[in-house]
Amino acid sequence: MDIAGLLATEHEAIEEALDQWLPAEGEYPALIHEAIRYSVLGGGKRLRPILALAATRSLGCDADRIVRSACAIEYVHCCSLVLDDLPSMDDASMRRGRPTVHRAFGVATAILAANALLMHAFSLIADNGEAVGAPGSSVAAATRDLATAVGSYGMVGGQHVDLESSRGGRVDSGTVEYIQSRKTGALFVVAATTGGTLLGAEQPRIDAVASYARKLGFIYQIVDDIMDVEGDEEVVGKDLRKDKGKLTFVTLYGVDGARRMAENLVREARSSLSSVGEDVDALSELVGYCLERVS
Amino acid sequence: MDIAGLLATEHEAIEEALDQWLPAEGEYPALIHEAIRYSVLGGGKRLRPILALAATRSLGCDADRIVRSACAIEYVHCCSLVLDDLPSMDDASMRRGRPTVHRAFGVATAILAANALLMHAFSLIADNGEAVGAPGSSVAAATRDLATAVGSYGMVGGQHVDLESSRGGRVDSGTVEYIQSRKTGALFVVAATTGGTLLGAEQPRIDAVASYARKLGFIYQIVDDIMDVEGDEEVVGKDLRKDKGKLTFVTLYGVDGARRMAENLVREARSSLSSVGEDVDALSELVGYCLERVS
Repeated sequence: MDIAGLLATEHEAIEEALDQWLPAEGEYPALIHEAIRYSVLGGGKRLRPILALAATRSLGCDADRIVRSACAIEYVHCCSLVLDDLPSMDDASMRRGRPTVHRAFGVATAILAANALLMHAFSLIADNGEAVGAPGSSVAAATRDLATAVGSYGMVGGQHVDLESSRGGRVDSGTVEYIQSRKTGALFVVAATTGGTLLGAEQPRIDAVASYARKLGFIYQIVDDIMDVEGDEEVVGKDLRKDKGKLTFVTLYGVDGARRMAENLVREARSSLSSVGEDVDALSELVGYCLERVS
Repeated sequence: MDIAGLLATEHEAIEEALDQWLPAEGEYPALIHEAIRYSVLGGGKRLRPILALAATRSLGCDADRIVRSACAIEYVHCCSLVLDDLPSMDDASMRRGRPTVHRAFGVATAILAANALLMHAFSLIADNGEAVGAPGSSVAAATRDLATAVGSYGMVGGQHVDLESSRGGRVDSGTVEYIQSRKTGALFVVAATTGGTLLGAEQPRIDAVASYARKLGFIYQIVDDIMDVEGDEEVVGKDLRKDKGKLTFVTLYGVDGARRMAENLVREARSSLSSVGEDVDALSELVGYCLERVS
Protein backbone atom coordinates (compact mmCIF):
# COMPACT_ATOMS: atom_id res chain seq x y z
CA MET A 1 0.00 0.00 0.00
CA ASP A 2 1.27 3.43 -0.97
CA ILE A 3 0.39 5.65 1.99
CA ALA A 4 1.32 8.86 0.19
CA GLY A 5 -1.03 7.99 -2.68
CA LEU A 6 -3.80 6.96 -0.31
CA LEU A 7 -3.43 10.13 1.71
CA ALA A 8 -3.51 12.31 -1.40
CA THR A 9 -6.67 10.63 -2.71
CA GLU A 10 -8.39 10.69 0.68
CA HIS A 11 -7.28 14.25 1.28
CA GLU A 12 -8.92 15.51 -1.90
CA ALA A 13 -12.19 13.69 -1.20
CA ILE A 14 -12.22 14.97 2.36
CA GLU A 15 -11.54 18.59 1.37
CA GLU A 16 -14.57 18.39 -0.91
CA ALA A 17 -16.74 16.84 1.79
CA LEU A 18 -15.60 19.38 4.40
CA ASP A 19 -16.72 22.17 2.10
CA GLN A 20 -19.98 20.46 1.20
CA TRP A 21 -21.13 19.79 4.77
CA LEU A 22 -20.46 23.33 6.03
CA PRO A 23 -23.08 26.09 5.94
CA ALA A 24 -22.83 27.77 2.53
CA GLU A 25 -20.94 30.99 1.97
CA GLY A 26 -23.10 34.08 2.48
CA GLU A 27 -25.72 32.25 4.54
CA TYR A 28 -27.14 34.52 7.28
CA PRO A 29 -25.58 35.53 9.64
CA ALA A 30 -22.86 35.82 7.01
CA LEU A 31 -19.87 36.84 9.13
CA ILE A 32 -20.23 33.85 11.46
CA HIS A 33 -20.39 31.47 8.52
CA GLU A 34 -17.47 33.22 6.86
CA ALA A 35 -15.41 32.78 10.04
CA ILE A 36 -16.45 29.13 10.25
CA ARG A 37 -15.44 28.46 6.65
CA TYR A 38 -12.16 30.36 7.16
CA SER A 39 -11.32 28.24 10.19
CA VAL A 40 -12.06 24.94 8.44
CA LEU A 41 -11.06 25.46 4.83
CA GLY A 42 -7.66 27.03 5.42
CA GLY A 43 -5.64 23.87 4.77
CA GLY A 44 -4.67 21.21 7.28
CA LYS A 45 -3.50 17.63 7.14
CA ARG A 46 -7.01 16.23 7.72
CA LEU A 47 -5.50 13.38 9.69
CA ARG A 48 -8.60 12.86 11.85
CA PRO A 49 -11.12 12.33 9.03
CA ILE A 50 -8.56 10.18 7.17
CA LEU A 51 -8.23 8.13 10.35
CA ALA A 52 -12.03 7.99 10.67
CA LEU A 53 -12.50 6.56 7.17
CA ALA A 54 -9.58 4.10 7.43
CA ALA A 55 -10.64 2.90 10.89
CA THR A 56 -14.25 2.41 9.81
CA ARG A 57 -13.07 0.27 6.86
CA SER A 58 -10.80 -1.73 9.15
CA LEU A 59 -13.89 -2.61 11.23
CA GLY A 60 -15.51 -4.11 8.14
CA CYS A 61 -17.95 -1.20 7.65
CA ASP A 62 -18.77 0.99 4.65
CA ALA A 63 -16.88 4.23 5.29
CA ASP A 64 -18.83 6.05 2.56
CA ARG A 65 -21.83 6.01 4.91
CA ILE A 66 -20.12 8.00 7.68
CA VAL A 67 -18.36 10.77 5.71
CA ARG A 68 -20.47 13.38 7.52
CA SER A 69 -19.26 12.11 10.88
CA ALA A 70 -15.65 12.14 9.67
CA CYS A 71 -16.15 15.80 8.71
CA ALA A 72 -17.77 16.51 12.08
CA ILE A 73 -14.63 15.29 13.86
CA GLU A 74 -12.47 17.64 11.77
CA TYR A 75 -14.86 20.53 12.51
CA VAL A 76 -14.45 19.85 16.23
CA HIS A 77 -10.68 19.88 15.76
CA CYS A 78 -10.88 23.24 13.94
CA CYS A 79 -13.11 24.60 16.71
CA SER A 80 -10.49 23.62 19.28
CA LEU A 81 -7.75 25.37 17.29
CA VAL A 82 -9.76 28.60 17.19
CA LEU A 83 -10.27 28.51 20.96
CA ASP A 84 -6.67 27.45 21.75
CA ASP A 85 -5.36 30.35 19.67
CA LEU A 86 -7.37 33.02 21.55
CA PRO A 87 -5.49 35.82 23.34
CA SER A 88 -6.64 34.47 26.72
CA MET A 89 -5.26 31.01 25.82
CA ASP A 90 -2.14 30.49 23.66
CA ASP A 91 -2.40 33.96 22.07
CA ALA A 92 -1.33 32.71 18.62
CA SER A 93 -1.20 35.02 15.63
CA MET A 94 -0.68 32.54 12.78
CA ARG A 95 -2.27 29.20 11.94
CA ARG A 96 -1.92 27.22 8.71
CA GLY A 97 0.07 30.10 7.24
CA ARG A 98 -2.65 32.72 7.78
CA PRO A 99 -3.81 35.00 10.61
CA THR A 100 -5.68 33.10 13.32
CA VAL A 101 -9.47 33.49 13.34
CA HIS A 102 -9.55 36.06 16.15
CA ARG A 103 -6.88 38.10 14.34
CA ALA A 104 -8.94 38.03 11.15
CA PHE A 105 -12.46 38.40 12.63
CA GLY A 106 -12.10 39.66 16.22
CA VAL A 107 -12.32 37.75 19.50
CA ALA A 108 -16.12 37.77 19.88
CA THR A 109 -16.72 36.41 16.39
CA ALA A 110 -14.00 33.79 16.88
CA ILE A 111 -15.62 32.49 20.08
CA LEU A 112 -19.09 32.49 18.53
CA ALA A 113 -17.90 30.80 15.32
CA ALA A 114 -16.04 28.13 17.29
CA ASN A 115 -19.16 27.31 19.26
CA ALA A 116 -21.33 27.30 16.17
CA LEU A 117 -18.91 24.92 14.48
CA LEU A 118 -19.01 22.62 17.49
CA MET A 119 -22.80 22.60 17.38
CA HIS A 120 -22.75 21.92 13.66
CA ALA A 121 -20.62 18.85 14.33
CA PHE A 122 -23.19 17.46 16.79
CA SER A 123 -25.98 18.06 14.29
CA LEU A 124 -24.07 16.14 11.63
CA ILE A 125 -23.39 13.17 13.91
CA ALA A 126 -27.09 13.06 14.80
CA ASP A 127 -28.13 13.35 11.14
CA ASN A 128 -25.66 10.66 10.16
CA GLY A 129 -26.86 8.30 12.89
CA GLU A 130 -30.44 8.75 11.79
CA ALA A 131 -29.57 8.34 8.09
CA VAL A 132 -27.85 4.97 8.62
CA GLY A 133 -30.71 3.76 10.83
CA ALA A 134 -28.58 3.42 13.96
CA PRO A 135 -30.49 2.41 17.13
CA GLY A 136 -30.94 4.90 19.99
CA SER A 137 -28.13 3.40 22.04
CA SER A 138 -25.65 3.88 19.15
CA VAL A 139 -26.68 7.46 18.42
CA ALA A 140 -26.44 8.14 22.16
CA ALA A 141 -22.99 6.52 22.35
CA ALA A 142 -21.65 8.51 19.37
CA THR A 143 -23.00 11.76 20.84
CA ARG A 144 -21.71 11.01 24.32
CA ASP A 145 -18.29 9.89 23.07
CA LEU A 146 -17.82 13.15 21.19
CA ALA A 147 -19.11 15.29 24.07
CA THR A 148 -16.81 13.49 26.51
CA ALA A 149 -13.82 13.86 24.19
CA VAL A 150 -14.38 17.63 24.04
CA GLY A 151 -15.53 18.42 27.60
CA SER A 152 -13.89 18.70 31.00
CA TYR A 153 -12.69 15.08 30.90
CA GLY A 154 -11.30 15.57 27.39
CA MET A 155 -9.92 18.45 25.35
CA VAL A 156 -11.14 21.20 27.68
CA GLY A 157 -9.55 19.42 30.64
CA GLY A 158 -6.31 18.95 28.70
CA GLN A 159 -6.17 22.58 27.62
CA HIS A 160 -6.88 23.76 31.15
CA VAL A 161 -4.14 21.64 32.74
CA ASP A 162 -1.81 22.68 29.88
CA LEU A 163 -2.40 26.37 30.64
CA GLU A 164 -1.98 25.72 34.36
CA SER A 165 1.30 23.86 33.80
CA SER A 166 2.69 26.73 31.72
CA ARG A 167 1.82 29.09 34.57
CA GLY A 168 3.82 27.15 37.12
CA GLY A 169 1.58 24.16 37.84
CA ARG A 170 2.64 20.57 38.44
CA VAL A 171 5.45 19.18 36.26
CA ASP A 172 5.65 15.40 36.02
CA SER A 173 5.21 12.69 33.42
CA GLY A 174 1.70 11.88 34.67
CA THR A 175 0.60 15.44 34.05
CA VAL A 176 2.13 15.49 30.54
CA GLU A 177 0.38 12.23 29.78
CA TYR A 178 -2.91 13.69 31.07
CA ILE A 179 -2.54 16.79 28.91
CA GLN A 180 -1.55 14.95 25.73
CA SER A 181 -4.09 12.16 26.01
CA ARG A 182 -6.88 14.72 26.48
CA LYS A 183 -5.74 17.41 24.05
CA THR A 184 -4.96 15.06 21.17
CA GLY A 185 -5.73 11.44 22.01
CA ALA A 186 -9.37 11.88 22.97
CA LEU A 187 -10.44 13.17 19.56
CA PHE A 188 -8.27 10.61 17.71
CA VAL A 189 -10.14 7.87 19.58
CA VAL A 190 -13.54 9.31 18.67
CA ALA A 191 -12.41 9.72 15.06
CA ALA A 192 -11.46 6.05 14.94
CA THR A 193 -14.58 4.67 16.66
CA THR A 194 -17.60 6.80 15.66
CA GLY A 195 -18.10 5.14 12.27
CA GLY A 196 -18.04 1.67 13.81
CA THR A 197 -20.34 2.77 16.62
CA LEU A 198 -22.97 4.17 14.23
CA LEU A 199 -22.69 1.25 11.81
CA GLY A 200 -22.89 -1.46 14.49
CA ALA A 201 -19.35 -2.92 14.43
CA GLU A 202 -18.48 -5.46 17.15
CA GLN A 203 -17.48 -3.79 20.43
CA PRO A 204 -14.18 -5.70 20.99
CA ARG A 205 -12.97 -4.57 17.57
CA ILE A 206 -14.05 -0.98 18.30
CA ASP A 207 -12.14 -1.17 21.58
CA ALA A 208 -9.02 -2.40 19.76
CA VAL A 209 -9.16 0.44 17.23
CA ALA A 210 -9.64 2.88 20.13
CA SER A 211 -6.48 1.54 21.77
CA TYR A 212 -4.60 1.97 18.48
CA ALA A 213 -5.92 5.53 18.07
CA ARG A 214 -4.92 6.49 21.60
CA LYS A 215 -1.32 5.52 20.80
CA LEU A 216 -1.45 7.21 17.40
CA GLY A 217 -2.52 10.39 19.18
CA PHE A 218 0.48 10.17 21.49
CA ILE A 219 2.84 9.65 18.58
CA TYR A 220 1.33 12.59 16.74
CA GLN A 221 1.60 14.87 19.75
CA ILE A 222 5.19 13.89 20.52
CA VAL A 223 6.12 14.58 16.89
CA ASP A 224 4.34 17.93 17.11
CA ASP A 225 6.30 18.82 20.24
CA ILE A 226 9.58 17.86 18.55
CA MET A 227 8.67 20.02 15.55
CA ASP A 228 7.93 22.92 17.86
CA VAL A 229 11.58 22.78 18.89
CA GLU A 230 13.21 21.78 15.61
CA GLY A 231 10.75 22.94 12.92
CA ASP A 232 10.79 25.86 10.50
CA GLU A 233 7.87 28.31 10.98
CA GLU A 234 7.53 28.96 7.25
CA VAL A 235 7.20 25.27 6.48
CA VAL A 236 4.93 24.43 9.41
CA GLY A 237 2.71 27.50 8.88
CA LYS A 238 2.01 28.35 12.51
CA ASP A 239 3.73 30.02 15.44
CA LEU A 240 6.48 27.77 16.80
CA ARG A 241 8.46 27.86 20.08
CA LYS A 242 5.06 28.46 21.70
CA ASP A 243 5.79 25.53 24.00
CA LYS A 244 8.58 27.39 25.79
CA GLY A 245 7.71 27.03 29.45
CA LYS A 246 5.02 24.52 28.56
CA LEU A 247 5.06 20.96 29.71
CA THR A 248 5.64 18.45 26.89
CA PHE A 249 7.40 15.12 26.49
CA VAL A 250 10.24 17.06 24.85
CA THR A 251 10.72 19.44 27.78
CA LEU A 252 10.56 16.41 30.06
CA TYR A 253 12.75 13.88 28.21
CA GLY A 254 14.57 15.94 25.55
CA VAL A 255 14.22 15.48 21.78
CA ASP A 256 16.02 12.13 21.71
CA GLY A 257 14.08 10.71 24.63
CA ALA A 258 10.78 11.84 23.10
CA ARG A 259 11.73 10.33 19.74
CA ARG A 260 12.53 6.97 21.36
CA MET A 261 9.19 7.13 23.15
CA ALA A 262 7.40 7.69 19.85
CA GLU A 263 9.22 4.75 18.27
CA ASN A 264 8.07 2.47 21.08
CA LEU A 265 4.52 3.70 20.68
CA VAL A 266 4.68 2.87 16.96
CA ARG A 267 5.32 -0.78 17.82
CA GLU A 268 2.53 -0.77 20.41
CA ALA A 269 0.05 0.91 18.07
CA ARG A 270 0.72 -1.66 15.35
CA SER A 271 0.34 -4.53 17.77
CA SER A 272 -3.10 -3.21 18.79
CA LEU A 273 -4.15 -3.64 15.17
CA SER A 274 -4.04 -7.44 15.37
CA SER A 275 -7.36 -7.39 17.28
CA VAL A 276 -9.03 -4.91 14.91
CA GLY A 277 -9.44 -7.03 11.80
CA GLU A 278 -7.97 -7.96 8.44
CA ASP A 279 -7.99 -4.67 6.60
CA VAL A 280 -5.57 -2.69 8.75
CA ASP A 281 -2.81 -1.84 6.27
CA ALA A 282 -3.88 1.79 5.97
CA LEU A 283 -3.94 2.19 9.76
CA SER A 284 -0.51 0.62 10.01
CA GLU A 285 0.89 2.96 7.36
CA LEU A 286 -0.70 5.95 9.09
CA VAL A 287 1.46 5.28 12.14
CA GLY A 288 4.63 5.45 10.09
CA TYR A 289 3.39 8.58 8.35
CA CYS A 290 2.88 10.34 11.68
CA LEU A 291 6.36 9.36 12.82
CA GLU A 292 8.12 10.25 9.58
CA ARG A 293 7.22 13.90 9.90
CA VAL A 294 10.23 14.29 12.20
CA SER A 295 12.69 11.65 11.04
CA MET B 1 -53.63 25.98 40.31
CA ASP B 2 -51.35 28.10 42.47
CA ILE B 3 -48.44 29.00 40.18
CA ALA B 4 -46.36 30.46 43.00
CA GLY B 5 -46.66 27.23 44.96
CA LEU B 6 -45.94 25.11 41.92
CA LEU B 7 -42.91 27.18 41.03
CA ALA B 8 -41.55 26.99 44.57
CA THR B 9 -41.93 23.20 44.70
CA GLU B 10 -40.50 22.71 41.20
CA HIS B 11 -37.70 25.16 41.91
CA GLU B 12 -36.50 23.23 44.93
CA ALA B 13 -36.57 19.89 43.13
CA ILE B 14 -34.75 21.39 40.16
CA GLU B 15 -32.05 23.00 42.30
CA GLU B 16 -31.35 19.59 43.78
CA ALA B 17 -31.28 17.89 40.37
CA LEU B 18 -29.04 20.61 38.91
CA ASP B 19 -26.52 19.95 41.68
CA GLN B 20 -26.82 16.17 41.39
CA TRP B 21 -26.22 15.98 37.62
CA LEU B 22 -23.16 18.24 37.61
CA PRO B 23 -19.61 16.89 38.01
CA ALA B 24 -18.89 16.70 41.76
CA GLU B 25 -16.96 19.39 43.61
CA GLY B 26 -13.22 18.76 43.62
CA GLU B 27 -13.31 16.38 40.64
CA TYR B 28 -10.18 16.78 38.50
CA PRO B 29 -9.51 19.22 36.88
CA ALA B 30 -10.91 20.94 39.94
CA LEU B 31 -10.87 24.58 38.83
CA ILE B 32 -12.92 23.88 35.70
CA HIS B 33 -15.52 21.99 37.71
CA GLU B 34 -15.54 24.72 40.35
CA ALA B 35 -16.21 27.32 37.64
CA ILE B 36 -18.94 25.13 36.15
CA ARG B 37 -20.65 24.72 39.50
CA TYR B 38 -20.29 28.45 40.22
CA SER B 39 -21.93 29.32 36.92
CA VAL B 40 -24.87 26.95 37.44
CA LEU B 41 -25.54 26.96 41.18
CA GLY B 42 -25.48 30.71 41.75
CA GLY B 43 -29.26 31.12 41.79
CA GLY B 44 -31.52 31.77 38.83
CA LYS B 45 -35.23 31.47 38.14
CA ARG B 46 -34.85 28.02 36.51
CA LEU B 47 -37.63 28.90 34.12
CA ARG B 48 -36.34 26.61 31.35
CA PRO B 49 -36.29 23.37 33.35
CA ILE B 50 -39.64 24.30 34.95
CA LEU B 51 -40.98 24.77 31.42
CA ALA B 52 -39.42 21.46 30.36
CA LEU B 53 -41.16 19.49 33.10
CA ALA B 54 -44.51 21.25 32.70
CA ALA B 55 -44.47 20.90 28.90
CA THR B 56 -43.57 17.21 29.09
CA ARG B 57 -46.51 16.60 31.43
CA SER B 58 -48.82 18.55 29.13
CA LEU B 59 -47.85 16.12 26.34
CA GLY B 60 -49.08 13.23 28.49
CA CYS B 61 -45.57 11.99 29.33
CA ASP B 62 -43.86 11.19 32.63
CA ALA B 63 -41.68 14.22 33.36
CA ASP B 64 -39.76 12.36 36.07
CA ARG B 65 -38.05 10.39 33.29
CA ILE B 66 -36.51 13.44 31.61
CA VAL B 67 -35.19 15.41 34.60
CA ARG B 68 -31.63 15.04 33.27
CA SER B 69 -32.64 16.65 29.99
CA ALA B 70 -34.38 19.48 31.82
CA CYS B 71 -31.13 20.08 33.71
CA ALA B 72 -29.16 19.92 30.45
CA ILE B 73 -31.24 22.78 29.03
CA GLU B 74 -30.49 24.91 32.09
CA TYR B 75 -26.77 24.07 31.78
CA VAL B 76 -26.84 25.29 28.19
CA HIS B 77 -28.52 28.49 29.37
CA CYS B 78 -25.81 29.00 32.02
CA CYS B 79 -23.13 28.35 29.40
CA SER B 80 -24.63 31.07 27.21
CA LEU B 81 -24.64 33.53 30.11
CA VAL B 82 -20.94 32.91 30.78
CA LEU B 83 -20.09 33.54 27.13
CA ASP B 84 -22.41 36.57 26.75
CA ASP B 85 -20.81 38.17 29.83
CA LEU B 86 -17.24 37.92 28.46
CA PRO B 87 -15.22 41.13 27.97
CA SER B 88 -15.27 40.62 24.19
CA MET B 89 -19.10 40.31 24.27
CA ASP B 90 -21.30 42.24 26.74
CA ASP B 91 -18.43 42.79 29.22
CA ALA B 92 -20.64 42.27 32.27
CA SER B 93 -19.23 42.35 35.79
CA MET B 94 -22.19 41.06 37.82
CA ARG B 95 -24.63 38.21 37.32
CA ARG B 96 -27.14 36.84 39.83
CA GLY B 97 -25.72 39.20 42.44
CA ARG B 98 -22.12 37.89 42.19
CA PRO B 99 -19.09 38.55 39.99
CA THR B 100 -19.46 37.00 36.54
CA VAL B 101 -17.48 33.79 35.89
CA HIS B 102 -14.64 35.50 34.00
CA ARG B 103 -14.32 38.07 36.81
CA ALA B 104 -14.11 35.28 39.36
CA PHE B 105 -12.00 32.74 37.42
CA GLY B 106 -10.37 34.58 34.51
CA VAL B 107 -11.32 34.65 30.84
CA ALA B 108 -9.61 31.41 29.76
CA THR B 109 -11.23 29.35 32.51
CA ALA B 110 -14.61 30.96 31.79
CA ILE B 111 -14.44 30.00 28.11
CA LEU B 112 -13.26 26.47 28.89
CA ALA B 113 -15.87 25.97 31.62
CA ALA B 114 -18.65 27.21 29.34
CA ASN B 115 -17.66 24.73 26.65
CA ALA B 116 -17.33 21.90 29.14
CA LEU B 117 -20.79 22.68 30.47
CA LEU B 118 -22.21 22.65 26.96
CA MET B 119 -20.63 19.25 26.33
CA HIS B 120 -21.95 17.95 29.62
CA ALA B 121 -25.45 18.91 28.48
CA PHE B 122 -25.09 16.87 25.29
CA SER B 123 -23.86 13.87 27.27
CA LEU B 124 -26.87 14.07 29.56
CA ILE B 125 -29.36 14.27 26.68
CA ALA B 126 -27.70 11.22 25.11
CA ASP B 127 -27.70 9.32 28.42
CA ASN B 128 -31.31 10.24 29.02
CA GLY B 129 -32.36 9.14 25.54
CA GLU B 130 -30.65 5.80 26.02
CA ALA B 131 -32.09 5.35 29.52
CA VAL B 132 -35.69 5.80 28.36
CA GLY B 133 -35.11 3.48 25.39
CA ALA B 134 -35.72 6.16 22.76
CA PRO B 135 -35.19 5.03 19.13
CA GLY B 136 -32.26 6.37 17.10
CA SER B 137 -34.39 8.93 15.29
CA SER B 138 -35.58 10.44 18.59
CA VAL B 139 -32.12 10.62 20.14
CA ALA B 140 -30.92 12.17 16.90
CA ALA B 141 -33.78 14.70 16.91
CA ALA B 142 -33.17 15.72 20.52
CA THR B 143 -29.44 16.16 19.85
CA ARG B 144 -29.98 18.05 16.62
CA ASP B 145 -32.69 20.29 18.11
CA LEU B 146 -30.36 21.33 20.93
CA ALA B 147 -27.37 21.83 18.61
CA THR B 148 -29.49 23.93 16.24
CA ALA B 149 -30.88 26.02 19.10
CA VAL B 150 -27.35 26.85 20.24
CA GLY B 151 -25.47 27.18 16.93
CA SER B 152 -25.28 29.73 14.15
CA TYR B 153 -29.01 29.44 13.40
CA GLY B 154 -29.83 29.81 17.10
CA MET B 155 -28.28 31.48 20.12
CA VAL B 156 -24.88 32.08 18.51
CA GLY B 157 -26.56 33.73 15.52
CA GLY B 158 -28.73 35.84 17.83
CA GLN B 159 -25.80 36.97 19.95
CA HIS B 160 -23.77 37.81 16.84
CA VAL B 161 -26.52 39.94 15.26
CA ASP B 162 -27.15 41.52 18.67
CA LEU B 163 -23.49 42.56 18.95
CA GLU B 164 -23.54 43.80 15.36
CA SER B 165 -26.69 45.86 15.96
CA SER B 166 -25.16 47.52 19.02
CA ARG B 167 -22.15 48.46 16.89
CA GLY B 168 -24.24 50.24 14.31
CA GLY B 169 -25.78 47.41 12.34
CA ARG B 170 -29.28 47.22 10.90
CA VAL B 171 -32.13 48.54 13.08
CA ASP B 172 -35.59 47.27 12.22
CA SER B 173 -38.29 45.11 13.77
CA GLY B 174 -37.27 42.09 11.68
CA THR B 175 -33.76 42.25 13.12
CA VAL B 176 -35.06 42.58 16.71
CA GLU B 177 -37.33 39.62 16.12
CA TYR B 178 -34.40 37.63 14.71
CA ILE B 179 -32.23 38.44 17.72
CA GLN B 180 -34.86 37.71 20.35
CA SER B 181 -36.19 34.54 18.78
CA ARG B 182 -32.65 33.15 18.58
CA LYS B 183 -31.23 34.41 21.84
CA THR B 184 -34.20 33.38 23.97
CA GLY B 185 -36.91 31.64 21.98
CA ALA B 186 -34.77 28.86 20.51
CA LEU B 187 -33.82 27.38 23.88
CA PHE B 188 -37.37 27.83 25.26
CA VAL B 189 -38.62 25.74 22.34
CA VAL B 190 -36.07 22.98 22.96
CA ALA B 191 -36.88 23.06 26.68
CA ALA B 192 -40.55 22.53 25.89
CA THR B 193 -40.10 19.79 23.28
CA THR B 194 -37.13 17.59 24.26
CA GLY B 195 -39.02 15.54 26.86
CA GLY B 196 -41.81 14.78 24.40
CA THR B 197 -39.31 13.98 21.65
CA LEU B 198 -37.42 11.46 23.80
CA LEU B 199 -40.58 9.92 25.25
CA GLY B 200 -42.37 9.56 21.90
CA ALA B 201 -45.18 12.13 22.19
CA GLU B 202 -47.28 12.79 19.08
CA GLN B 203 -45.60 15.24 16.69
CA PRO B 204 -48.60 17.64 16.23
CA ARG B 205 -48.77 18.11 19.99
CA ILE B 206 -45.01 18.66 20.17
CA ASP B 207 -45.36 21.26 17.40
CA ALA B 208 -48.13 23.03 19.35
CA VAL B 209 -46.07 23.19 22.53
CA ALA B 210 -43.14 24.51 20.45
CA SER B 211 -45.36 27.29 19.12
CA TYR B 212 -46.41 28.14 22.70
CA ALA B 213 -42.78 28.16 23.89
CA ARG B 214 -41.68 30.45 21.06
CA LYS B 215 -44.25 33.03 22.22
CA LEU B 216 -43.36 32.51 25.87
CA GLY B 217 -39.74 33.26 24.94
CA PHE B 218 -40.77 36.51 23.28
CA ILE B 219 -42.81 37.54 26.30
CA TYR B 220 -39.93 36.73 28.60
CA GLN B 221 -37.46 38.70 26.51
CA ILE B 222 -39.72 41.74 26.19
CA VAL B 223 -40.20 41.73 29.96
CA ASP B 224 -36.44 41.46 30.41
CA ASP B 225 -35.90 44.43 28.13
CA ILE B 226 -38.47 46.48 30.04
CA MET B 227 -36.75 45.56 33.32
CA ASP B 228 -33.43 46.65 31.87
CA VAL B 229 -34.93 50.13 31.55
CA GLU B 230 -37.12 50.23 34.66
CA GLY B 231 -35.59 47.69 37.05
CA ASP B 232 -33.48 48.08 40.18
CA GLU B 233 -29.97 46.55 39.89
CA GLU B 234 -29.95 45.38 43.49
CA VAL B 235 -33.22 43.52 43.07
CA VAL B 236 -32.41 42.07 39.64
CA GLY B 237 -28.86 41.06 40.63
CA LYS B 238 -27.11 41.83 37.35
CA ASP B 239 -25.83 44.83 35.45
CA LEU B 240 -28.74 46.86 34.01
CA ARG B 241 -28.87 49.60 31.38
CA LYS B 242 -26.60 47.29 29.35
CA ASP B 243 -29.04 47.55 26.48
CA LYS B 244 -28.26 51.22 25.90
CA GLY B 245 -27.50 51.40 22.23
CA LYS B 246 -28.72 47.83 21.79
CA LEU B 247 -31.65 46.92 19.66
CA THR B 248 -34.67 45.68 21.67
CA PHE B 249 -38.44 45.91 21.38
CA VAL B 250 -38.26 48.63 24.04
CA THR B 251 -35.80 50.79 22.11
CA LEU B 252 -37.97 50.23 19.03
CA TYR B 253 -41.50 50.69 20.44
CA GLY B 254 -40.98 52.23 23.89
CA VAL B 255 -41.95 50.65 27.22
CA ASP B 256 -45.70 50.98 26.64
CA GLY B 257 -45.54 49.64 23.10
CA ALA B 258 -43.44 46.69 24.25
CA ARG B 259 -45.81 45.96 27.12
CA ARG B 260 -48.80 45.93 24.77
CA MET B 261 -46.88 43.58 22.49
CA ALA B 262 -46.26 41.22 25.41
CA GLU B 263 -49.93 41.27 26.35
CA ASN B 264 -50.93 40.29 22.84
CA LEU B 265 -48.39 37.46 22.90
CA VAL B 266 -49.92 36.20 26.15
CA ARG B 267 -53.22 35.69 24.39
CA GLU B 268 -51.52 34.01 21.44
CA ALA B 269 -49.43 31.72 23.65
CA ARG B 270 -52.50 30.59 25.57
CA SER B 271 -54.41 29.92 22.39
CA SER B 272 -51.56 27.68 21.16
CA LEU B 273 -52.19 25.51 24.21
CA SER B 274 -55.55 24.28 22.92
CA SER B 275 -53.71 21.95 20.51
CA VAL B 276 -51.27 20.67 23.13
CA GLY B 277 -53.56 18.61 25.35
CA GLU B 278 -55.66 18.57 28.51
CA ASP B 279 -53.13 19.21 31.21
CA VAL B 280 -51.97 22.70 30.25
CA ASP B 281 -52.89 24.72 33.35
CA ALA B 282 -49.27 25.01 34.49
CA LEU B 283 -48.17 26.22 31.05
CA SER B 284 -50.99 28.75 31.00
CA GLU B 285 -50.03 30.05 34.44
CA LEU B 286 -46.38 30.24 33.40
CA VAL B 287 -47.31 32.82 30.76
CA GLY B 288 -48.91 35.06 33.35
CA TYR B 289 -45.95 34.60 35.66
CA CYS B 290 -43.54 35.79 32.96
CA LEU B 291 -45.67 38.85 32.28
CA GLU B 292 -46.27 39.76 35.93
CA ARG B 293 -42.60 40.40 36.54
CA VAL B 294 -43.12 43.89 35.05
CA SER B 295 -46.69 44.73 35.85
